[in-house]
Amino acid sequence: MRIKDLHKQEAIIEATVELVNEIGFVSSSVSKIAKKAGVSPATIYIYYKNKEDLLVSTYIDIKTKLGDAAIKNIDENKPIRDIIKGVWLSLFAYISKNKEYFRFTEQFSHSPYSELVKKEEVEKVFEPIYKIVRKGIERKIIKDVNYDILSAFMFYPIITLANPRLCEHIDLDNETIETSFNLAWDAIKL
Amino acid sequence: MRIKDLHKQEAIIEATVELVNEIGFVSSSVSKIAKKAGVSPATIYIYYKNKEDLLVSTYIDIKTKLGDAAIKNIDENKPIRDIIKGVWLSLFAYISKNKEYFRFTEQFSHSPYSELVKKEEVEKVFEPIYKIVRKGIERKIIKDVNYDILSAFMFYPIITLANPRLCEHIDLDNETIETSFNLAWDAIKL
Repeated sequence: MRIKDLHKQEAIIEATVELVNEIGFVSSSVSKIAKKAGVSPATIYIYYKNKEDLLVSTYIDIKTKLGDAAIKNIDENKPIRDIIKGVWLSLFAYISKNKEYFRFTEQFSHSPYSELVKKEEVEKVFEPIYKIVRKGIERKIIKDVNYDILSAFMFYPIITLANPRLCEHIDLDNETIETSFNLAWDAIKL
Repeated sequence: MRIKDLHKQEAIIEATVELVNEIGFVSSSVSKIAKKAGVSPATIYIYYKNKEDLLVSTYIDIKTKLGDAAIKNIDENKPIRDIIKGVWLSLFAYISKNKEYFRFTEQFSHSPYSELVKKEEVEKVFEPIYKIVRKGIERKIIKDVNYDILSAFMFYPIITLANPRLCEHIDLDNETIETSFNLAWDAIKL
């Protein structure tokens, strides 16, 4: 794929996120998204079958970027807690910097479109994290509990903490972030 | 207020939640909500100034119902952990039974409308829980951490756990719910 095409596709994804956050899923049409992205609707149909495909692909794209950001500094030689802390801090930084993405994914997760996502496609992105958690369970460092429950307590609160509309009383300095990670770790550690 | 009016107002709130979940905030007009609720638009304007007022009031109404459900069985003579567990289980039961409400509140929290909510109005509903947590902190049972952080780990994961789209792998039997509460408690306990 040419670089120019990648730029175009990135512009389409950005426009999709912006428009959906502004006016919702139902009102966001392919033609409005094209206009916002500065491309023709025909260009969108080169990459995506239809509106549904565009929305689902945007969701998977964001999740993939999030996964890449989360795992980029994993050093498997470190102790489990340090590895998880690294992942947690990377996720925190990424979500804080890209709040618009998470307004989109939160809305998406609660919409019927989320039923169209192939779970495996999203899960494979987070596979390295899953493996570390598994190792932590085997070594009796992390509670032997369903991964979805662990991640509801370990990672999900980040989305609330990084949402200034929900957490306006909090000054997110390093100390607060450190404290928050301690709560996440205490939730999952054995 | 007459009982008939209360029924009407309840029907308007239900219609607002349903329509917003179906077609989003932007497309949901007062006239469409009126049609769904089986009342005239003029009736809606008796209770609410405008669409914004209706959306914000619906949000506060749901939060108030949630708060009432959470605190209804509080027995202040029990140990702190038991009180928090009672609150947690009540919240879990309420959220699981009223998933549509939380699709609405989640979308609302991430929308610009959330800036129109008077925080004190929502916070006063949860005041009894706040007081118990405060007591737990004073008695060195709960971590001395900002309340927003505590509740991000203690209560917020419930919304994920109760969302079948996010947690399809989990069978929410009593054992799973018990396990999940243990993670919540471990996060906040000193």
